[in-house]
Amino acid sequence: MSEVKKVVLAYSGGLDTSVILKWLQDVYQCEVVTFTADVGQGEELEPARAKATAAGIKEIYIDDLREEFARDFIFPMFRANTVYEGEYLLGTSIARPLIAKRLIEIANETGADTISHGATGKGNDQVRFELGAYALRPDIKVIAPWREWDLDSRQKLLAYAEEHGIPVEMKKGKTSPYSMDANSLHISYEGRVLEDPWAEPEEDMWRWTVSPENAPDQATYIELSYQSGDIIAIDGVPHTPHEVMAKLNAVAGANGVGRLDIVENRYVGMKSRGCYETPAGTVMLKAHRAIESLTLDREVAHLKDELMPRYASLIYNGYWWSPEREMLQTMINASQVNVNGKVRLKLYKGNVIVVGRASDNSLFDENIATFEADGGAYNQKDAEGFIKLNALRMRIAAKKGR
Amino acid sequence: MSEVKKVVLAYSGGLDTSVILKWLQDVYQCEVVTFTADVGQGEELEPARAKATAAGIKEIYIDDLREEFARDFIFPMFRANTVYEGEYLLGTSIARPLIAKRLIEIANETGADTISHGATGKGNDQVRFELGAYALRPDIKVIAPWREWDLDSRQKLLAYAEEHGIPVEMKKGKTSPYSMDANSLHISYEGRVLEDPWAEPEEDMWRWTVSPENAPDQATYIELSYQSGDIIAIDGVPHTPHEVMAKLNAVAGANGVGRLDIVENRYVGMKSRGCYETPAGTVMLKAHRAIESLTLDREVAHLKDELMPRYASLIYNGYWWSPEREMLQTMINASQVNVNGKVRLKLYKGNVIVVGRASDNSLFDENIATFEADGGAYNQKDAEGFIKLNALRMRIAAKKGR
Amino acid sequence: MSEVKKVVLAYSGGLDTSVILKWLQDVYQCEVVTFTADVGQGEELEPARAKATAAGIKEIYIDDLREEFARDFIFPMFRANTVYEGEYLLGTSIARPLIAKRLIEIANETGADTISHGATGKGNDQVRFELGAYALRPDIKVIAPWREWDLDSRQKLLAYAEEHGIPVEMKKGKTSPYSMDANSLHISYEGRVLEDPWAEPEEDMWRWTVSPENAPDQATYIELSYQSGDIIAIDGVPHTPHEVMAKLNAVAGANGVGRLDIVENRYVGMKSRGCYETPAGTVMLKAHRAIESLTLDREVAHLKDELMPRYASLIYNGYWWSPEREMLQTMINASQVNVNGKVRLKLYKGNVIVVGRASDNSLFDENIATFEADGGAYNQKDAEGFIKLNALRMRIAAKKGR
Amino acid sequence: MSEVKKVVLAYSGGLDTSVILKWLQDVYQCEVVTFTADVGQGEELEPARAKATAAGIKEIYIDDLREEFARDFIFPMFRANTVYEGEYLLGTSIARPLIAKRLIEIANETGADTISHGATGKGNDQVRFELGAYALRPDIKVIAPWREWDLDSRQKLLAYAEEHGIPVEMKKGKTSPYSMDANSLHISYEGRVLEDPWAEPEEDMWRWTVSPENAPDQATYIELSYQSGDIIAIDGVPHTPHEVMAKLNAVAGANGVGRLDIVENRYVGMKSRGCYETPAGTVMLKAHRAIESLTLDREVAHLKDELMPRYASLIYNGYWWSPEREMLQTMINASQVNVNGKVRLKLYKGNVIVVGRASDNSLFDENIATFEADGGAYNQKDAEGFIKLNALRMRIAAKKGR
Repeated sequence: MSEVKKVVLAYSGGLDTSVILKWLQDVYQCEVVTFTADVGQGEELEPARAKATAAGIKEIYIDDLREEFARDFIFPMFRANTVYEGEYLLGTSIARPLIAKRLIEIANETGADTISHGATGKGNDQVRFELGAYALRPDIKVIAPWREWDLDSRQKLLAYAEEHGIPVEMKKGKTSPYSMDANSLHISYEGRVLEDPWAEPEEDMWRWTVSPENAPDQATYIELSYQSGDIIAIDGVPHTPHEVMAKLNAVAGANGVGRLDIVENRYVGMKSRGCYETPAGTVMLKAHRAIESLTLDREVAHLKDELMPRYASLIYNGYWWSPEREMLQTMINASQVNVNGKVRLKLYKGNVIVVGRASDNSLFDENIATFEADGGAYNQKDAEGFIKLNALRMRIAAKKGR
Repeated sequence: MSEVKKVVLAYSGGLDTSVILKWLQDVYQCEVVTFTADVGQGEELEPARAKATAAGIKEIYIDDLREEFARDFIFPMFRANTVYEGEYLLGTSIARPLIAKRLIEIANETGADTISHGATGKGNDQVRFELGAYALRPDIKVIAPWREWDLDSRQKLLAYAEEHGIPVEMKKGKTSPYSMDANSLHISYEGRVLEDPWAEPEEDMWRWTVSPENAPDQATYIELSYQSGDIIAIDGVPHTPHEVMAKLNAVAGANGVGRLDIVENRYVGMKSRGCYETPAGTVMLKAHRAIESLTLDREVAHLKDELMPRYASLIYNGYWWSPEREMLQTMINASQVNVNGKVRLKLYKGNVIVVGRASDNSLFDENIATFEADGGAYNQKDAEGFIKLNALRMRIAAKKGR
Repeated sequence: MSEVKKVVLAYSGGLDTSVILKWLQDVYQCEVVTFTADVGQGEELEPARAKATAAGIKEIYIDDLREEFARDFIFPMFRANTVYEGEYLLGTSIARPLIAKRLIEIANETGADTISHGATGKGNDQVRFELGAYALRPDIKVIAPWREWDLDSRQKLLAYAEEHGIPVEMKKGKTSPYSMDANSLHISYEGRVLEDPWAEPEEDMWRWTVSPENAPDQATYIELSYQSGDIIAIDGVPHTPHEVMAKLNAVAGANGVGRLDIVENRYVGMKSRGCYETPAGTVMLKAHRAIESLTLDREVAHLKDELMPRYASLIYNGYWWSPEREMLQTMINASQVNVNGKVRLKLYKGNVIVVGRASDNSLFDENIATFEADGGAYNQKDAEGFIKLNALRMRIAAKKGR
Repeated sequence: MSEVKKVVLAYSGGLDTSVILKWLQDVYQCEVVTFTADVGQGEELEPARAKATAAGIKEIYIDDLREEFARDFIFPMFRANTVYEGEYLLGTSIARPLIAKRLIEIANETGADTISHGATGKGNDQVRFELGAYALRPDIKVIAPWREWDLDSRQKLLAYAEEHGIPVEMKKGKTSPYSMDANSLHISYEGRVLEDPWAEPEEDMWRWTVSPENAPDQATYIELSYQSGDIIAIDGVPHTPHEVMAKLNAVAGANGVGRLDIVENRYVGMKSRGCYETPAGTVMLKAHRAIESLTLDREVAHLKDELMPRYASLIYNGYWWSPEREMLQTMINASQVNVNGKVRLKLYKGNVIVVGRASDNSLFDENIATFEADGGAYNQKDAEGFIKLNALRMRIAAKKGR
């Protein structure tokens, strides 16, 4: 156990990080700085301040990061139509590099030599926090209590809390048996009954969306405006990135849009089952592909599609602050300069249906595409040579008996 | 115009190919063999026989290719989770190489030196037919009337038909203003109002699916059984590949599943707008990913995902019979040996929801994945070294001031 | 044959393009503008001016493009360590987009509606010229005489020249039986005896390099300085990009460096055999990899390596002016910001041997890499966790009997 | 420290593994099985037997794995033209999975529960040994003494040896100050002066090759015969895989072929400098590309080239026994079925020059490739349509003002 002078703790005010706070003070005998971020999880942060104060913390950071999160993390990621393993929209993954960045910034501001977090040793989040931290400050020390202590069950944690006078009140509203994470992009559920991949989740697990069954019988139409690949307005009304997230989460969630139930492959080597609600993100993925379908060159689009799985893995695995992610982002951003225009969508009982797309930068050429006579815009005879030369290597091979 | 002795014509019995038949006889003064395939388009083929006979054709081929189509084309393609440009399930594309293969087989059987088809010079289908034909018989001649004649509008075609006594009765049922193509995997719509990407298609365009609005208020649950990546049973009842397609099309279509409305990039260089109904395919894609999520190794799955866009482009562009497609298929097939088990799905008003997956070949390890104490199955301390070494190159860079 | 008013001809002054000049005047009855470029081929251009004048040409462009060629085409390409099919350094390919650009610029300046070139219908160069031209001016017309006329053999060409009084003097120095192309990056040889892939080229074919056998018995050492991935100095003396090419061609050629003899796959579908001399390029590829080996992050380097074959194909196939090439270039350029430093090389009888590399931006950390005790710079125990978690998915699979 | 009953040690008989042997006996109080492999390193193995016997070992395995190594590891790797980071031929990497496999086989035969090796905690070899071992037997225990003990310098090691009566005689022949590894594919050098990337290695470091300067003044020509991508004969004389390695190492080494001096990126996160001699491999890479240039389809070759860096990384990083490597190998092997024929090479003072290639499966078509009149084998007019349609998307974009 190396010497620790001051540690910045990613602190939610919940049971786990409250125990960690106390444990750090006891075991490391060090000063603790708490950092609580609003990344759109929808919880009040002032109780965290009160608890930190009660725990004797002098330096308490409570930051509203919602605009930065949407603008600098969610939006850049959606420019790439990013999906992990064909399904997962990376809701948890994309928030972690922002937390890592703030932890290091606060460590630098407060003269701390160490950061700490409440992620377990089995999950991806520890990797995301720590890779980010090391990349941004290579000499930082990290305390990951779940990898160190022997409080390896709920009971032991509760016993420790009781023993040290840590209040065990639950979050407001109904308590959940699931391990959850929430931010502007999504809310996730893991553990308990979900550990059986054959078991269907119970309806009352879901929090941000109504079920398709309970969604309105009337469809909702919305129109999204894009500039350089980012949404800048909804139904003609300009919005900041975070406002876009909030608006879309509301309207999509109300229409039963955005539930996902998957088995995924963690970076640490195991498969796990997770359920996710990503209402806004589900709409954004579909709509962004639609506006790109009009405005992107074919080969640019295909190159993006081929690189996307790797870009998604980089984010999933915690490499947001790596040079290879930045290199890919440079290319992705460059591709978006003409991704302008609008997309019209129909939301209905879990469905996101594109019903129109238009752009001043459209590459769709009606004169050429038409089934009617095109007045010479396209010479059908060109196709013969095109096919003949594309076939040539296969014809030669066939003649040689392949 | 090179010498043509005998030509095998891909013949549907509809107006276009009936005109082509007559035109070939007139212009090329050659013998014509007609070939009409049942690839699941849902139309009776005997009328085609009658019309061909009436046109004086001696050699008439009418083949039921539905099982071969599902078994050797659709199923292998779905092993790769194949999607073109993030959306399109390649319904038209995957039928063309089978037609090309039969055209060449029939040419070989009948001593024909030429094949002909009714695809236009603007589309992808001409490429798919002809690349396949050249790959399978390099000296074959091809007549693509739409690239040759001057019948470049509907009116001229109808005038030609009338002039030559070709019956212009329409397909049974309601007539469609759209350019359509159908087979066991899908039905497609192009042209007319769809040439405006901002226009929403009218409800009565769709033929194979009810709208989500009109789908039953009660969800339908189905269970699919997989062996080596292919569906072998539905709800425990074994089915042949074509039966799988037929069953799934019925149940998914009845639940409003499978509509798609996109702008896509054609191989010949233009963007075009297409609407598609792919009820079975939409279910199959989702379910196959689910069974793979349990049974595939992570890196195998990721490699498949990275290569998929290229594999999709090969099929879209008409390279089914190319050595690079076969090379990729070898790898894809090899990946599927353990993709066995079952997937439970809920179909509801356009939604396909995975609600369970199970496999004797599952790589999901509950003991390791659990949030509870795992009895040493996983050593959380290992994560520290894992993170430290993965971070090393970034730490070195940061120390050097990057 | 469409109406042509004025045509810009890529004109070397040699027999082929002299015949084309006359043929254009005769057949198209149009005004001709000649464009002759110095891209480092090592021939005097004034004779071309005299011949063009003699042929009655009013607008004669003779441009020294050597610096632009090196700076904006060769250098950016080498930032990617570009090699086509594992061997070819793309000497011809990389000059064509510059020629295409100038043809269009001159057409715009002179009010021409058409361009023309002397590339045959079998090769890649026609594609490179024309894709570039169409991308830069979509309505341009192209006349490719070799695809049109019936002068399909050397004899017919000579007969036409004689008939029309075109001087058939050969290039100065010995005449070559090979089809050749030269510029600052390379000289190429095709045709004749080379059409047999089993035949070894004769020694007197090569023009820019001595044979390894005839190279000096004493090695030559040189030191190259890099800034942002480009060579800026040789042996400490600053040089412009073209000077770099000239210097390196001289020193490498004198040491027998840069010969290549391959069978390659043309974009138009056939295999062809080509011999190349690329003295400077051979040195530059080796040296650039060496400076990158010190200064590039591992994952950035690997991503570049994985994308390089595609980037090489884009250039080989003529897509320099495509959006996907520009998109890739953005990423490649971004990767080079820290590729600074120097590389020391030994040239000896055909060998290019890296003997040293150094950089202020080096990521090589002696303290960590050392085999000696490192004072805690690296904790060997971290490797256990790193291996354990990387092995986890394979261990789970093995336990499940895979 | 977990309970260990019997351990199989990868034992060379040298100082390091002799110390490890003793240390295992002392510290773990367990039975030790020694395993010494002949993978072509060119050292006698009987001394290892004598030493093991002297150390009281009962179960001594000494295996000649040279044919298996060449046939099942080196040859499959060369089918992919495998190169790591553009330079390294993976000589060390490719031997490790074979050692790992034998360690596990011997553990299974002898009832051992543990394996041990002498690789350090900083290098790649520990990863390669252990990933292989875990993949083949998931419950195996691993002892990596360099990560455990405090003998972290040469002096401490020698002191331990002296203290425990371990003979410190050096390898026969001159002793080397470098850290070395040798097998049929290569010999490597690391450490000491090489830790400065600017320092040129001294001539007397190299062991398997003469310098280009000292190579014969007369070139040596050889002819290699290929079947399914593997060399089966040299100069017409059939050889087993290992014989091929031995012969080619001899002839290439005598001609100064195969030296390499690079800075590479280790999997554990640091850069390191290594020098390598790979005489046979250098010839094989060049020759295999040459036979493929005649016999492989273009797109197959390009797909192989794009996947090669990843395949190389898998081997470098120790994932030979992973499902993704096997999946890629399936595809690579499938590509080689027509890679038959012969390649003629000239070896001269460090140069490997391809001077001829021939194959009954050649796809080189002289009739089409010729610069002379081809009698209609290729229709040059086809190129116009080919170019026009390939340019279409760019023309549309240009018309729209891009």
